[in-house]
Amino acid sequence: MIYLTRRYRFSASHRLHNETLTAEENQRLYGKCDNAFGHGHNYVLDVTVAGPVEAETGMAFDLGELDRTVEREVLERFDTTNLNLDDRRFRSVVPTTENLCIEIYRTLEPKLAGQGRWPAARLDRVRLEETNSNYFEYAGGL
Amino acid sequence: MIYLTRRYRFSASHRLHNETLTAEENQRLYGKCDNAFGHGHNYVLDVTVAGPVEAETGMAFDLGELDRTVEREVLERFDTTNLNLDDRRFRSVVPTTENLCIEIYRTLEPKLAGQGRWPAARLDRVRLEETNSNYFEYAGGL
Amino acid sequence: MIYLTRRYRFSASHRLHNETLTAEENQRLYGKCDNAFGHGHNYVLDVTVAGPVEAETGMAFDLGELDRTVEREVLERFDTTNLNLDDRRFRSVVPTTENLCIEIYRTLEPKLAGQGRWPAARLDRVRLEETNSNYFEYAGGL
Amino acid sequence: MIYLTRRYRFSASHRLHNETLTAEENQRLYGKCDNAFGHGHNYVLDVTVAGPVEAETGMAFDLGELDRTVEREVLERFDTTNLNLDDRRFRSVVPTTENLCIEIYRTLEPKLAGQGRWPAARLDRVRLEETNSNYFEYAGGL
Amino acid sequence: MIYLTRRYRFSASHRLHNETLTAEENQRLYGKCDNAFGHGHNYVLDVTVAGPVEAETGMAFDLGELDRTVEREVLERFDTTNLNLDDRRFRSVVPTTENLCIEIYRTLEPKLAGQGRWPAARLDRVRLEETNSNYFEYAGGL
Amino acid sequence: MIYLTRRYRFSASHRLHNETLTAEENQRLYGKCDNAFGHGHNYVLDVTVAGPVEAETGMAFDLGELDRTVEREVLERFDTTNLNLDDRRFRSVVPTTENLCIEIYRTLEPKLAGQGRWPAARLDRVRLEETNSNYFEYAGGL
Repeated sequence: MIYLTRRYRFSASHRLHNETLTAEENQRLYGKCDNAFGHGHNYVLDVTVAGPVEAETGMAFDLGELDRTVEREVLERFDTTNLNLDDRRFRSVVPTTENLCIEIYRTLEPKLAGQGRWPAARLDRVRLEETNSNYFEYAGGL
Repeated sequence: MIYLTRRYRFSASHRLHNETLTAEENQRLYGKCDNAFGHGHNYVLDVTVAGPVEAETGMAFDLGELDRTVEREVLERFDTTNLNLDDRRFRSVVPTTENLCIEIYRTLEPKLAGQGRWPAARLDRVRLEETNSNYFEYAGGL
Repeated sequence: MIYLTRRYRFSASHRLHNETLTAEENQRLYGKCDNAFGHGHNYVLDVTVAGPVEAETGMAFDLGELDRTVEREVLERFDTTNLNLDDRRFRSVVPTTENLCIEIYRTLEPKLAGQGRWPAARLDRVRLEETNSNYFEYAGGL
Repeated sequence: MIYLTRRYRFSASHRLHNETLTAEENQRLYGKCDNAFGHGHNYVLDVTVAGPVEAETGMAFDLGELDRTVEREVLERFDTTNLNLDDRRFRSVVPTTENLCIEIYRTLEPKLAGQGRWPAARLDRVRLEETNSNYFEYAGGL
Repeated sequence: MIYLTRRYRFSASHRLHNETLTAEENQRLYGKCDNAFGHGHNYVLDVTVAGPVEAETGMAFDLGELDRTVEREVLERFDTTNLNLDDRRFRSVVPTTENLCIEIYRTLEPKLAGQGRWPAARLDRVRLEETNSNYFEYAGGL
Repeated sequence: MIYLTRRYRFSASHRLHNETLTAEENQRLYGKCDNAFGHGHNYVLDVTVAGPVEAETGMAFDLGELDRTVEREVLERFDTTNLNLDDRRFRSVVPTTENLCIEIYRTLEPKLAGQGRWPAARLDRVRLEETNSNYFEYAGGL
């Protein structure tokens, strides 16, 4: 097994706010991130695929296919958007980077399995950086 | 003269849109950045002060004073905001990173002149990074 | 389980020297790092917390609580210090980055367990970067 | 167990091309990387050694020994070379970064085991970055 | 005047060798970079355009136009190539990063002047990074 | 004229303290950096040489000569030292990064002029990064 990681970038805005909580509770939990009009980030997304190296090509996965899949499933959906207002998923779920990271994993996982020459390749993990000082990782499971 | 540069970070969202232009013109100029609900960035701000080294302290400026000034004048105003909706300046001016860079320079320039032990120190330039692949610099003048 | 990593920075000096070894042995082991008056580093500390995403908040842990804990337990103790002379732990133990990394893990581990809304969250690992070209990771265990 | 990672850099060129495939298949698989005269990269190599901290020295491994081993086994062999033409291994195997990463692991693994004061230390993994947006990791096994 | 810098990346290989010099002189000057089969780099190219901010758009230049120009004039020409063998310019001129930097400046300078809404914008400088530890800048002139 | 910049790294410790000032004044000016036993940094030093490209070699300066000069004049002197206690210059001058930056410039300037094939090359500027969030530049003059 070798692990191939490819880096993507997208920019989006969000507001951290849960309507079922009080204003005070929202403020205490999210601080400035509860600002009514939102704020934004340059997200850095690292997608890691695991699999054996296919002997003839010397490759663990087709990078072009990976790029097209991430472009279509993630970047077109989230880049240059307001997560709360533009995306159906985050109308009812708070768009924290935790939830965004899990949503990206769940979206990519079925799309990156069993492609052509790489039947054993699979999504290993997703890493989503929100700012220069924090990032989140999700590898599936509960 | 020595040049001291200090790095700050803030997150904000914006929408690039000029209401005096047509929808087509806005689309052509700003592309995805014209998205109605906005999108966001982690801005990286480098503030450069120029001045002689004061002999007794060995310092070109008081870093604590610089931090307090940038915190009060820039970070409190812009961090975790929506530039178009939260800031008076950008209700009538398109909040491109060019305009934000110039606004920060003009705000800091009078506040960073002639402080205590450092009467000859002055703001030299401001550099504002919007994403990993583009940044803007402004040093005053026309 | 999601993994949340937060980055902190501190500056300290140290001397690598074991008084129970001969001068030659110290020199062979630590080379220039055995310099009598010490030398210093900007350490980059990544603290990773693992846990399920709490449904109501969408968060894996309270970042404010994490910041306060690391500030109080690690940064106030080590930032802008001489590890050998200012810290009790490193009077008898050589302050290699290995030992510093383990000390930080052991200090944080009991403080980051079972907090309020996040009873299942726990410290997963600590990563301590000494220079641009080497870093250490510790995740507990023997 | 603590994990020590050390970063190295080398520059090399390669051409991705498998002579047993047709020109069309090579083009479809490798795209521009199939360019007849090759192209190049600045590779960033992270070598991770795992082991217990040796009590007397406070170290997990001898960094000088690690540097000498990587210099002799990897950097002298690959730095400033054309992988396809200068290296025997890649005359018959396509020098993808996957294959280069595995070759480096297999070369280093026997050389980094059971050294002097650190009998339990062993190579844990190798990470090879090809460009700013992709890297590969190999930790042995099938 | 504001300065807008945009970052691009390309990979190429080169050999530093001047056929009019002796083998010894080539070796003394270029060291390992004289390797007969070449070696490679991931070049990082920063293109800086200077100009006033156009009032209506709030922009110093059209980023889309800049991207298309650099893509067409520089990236298509040099990315994934062997500079010595694939490019006419470097058949007679040694493809040092100095010469490549100047060639890129001279190619872009006439293409980035006097575009549509930005008649006063002009190429200010080009910065070309060869490795993590060296880069070159050229701003025209002799 | 082309500008060649080369990056070097060294680690040192220092204490910011002026014995002619009171304890209160030292504390107010230098804060935690006045800690009696010192603290440390990983300094990043960028040395920029300016000159015309020499036609035969395609180079602006001899990188090997630059490396040897910086190694001998700067790195051997400051790397893995305590600036206050190990270096004569900083026994009487406070080792702020401003003063260290100027000292490096003044040391290198006469050594990097008029070398062999590059008689017109000269030191253009020195940039010294103290931490991830501040750096200093000096280009000579008063």
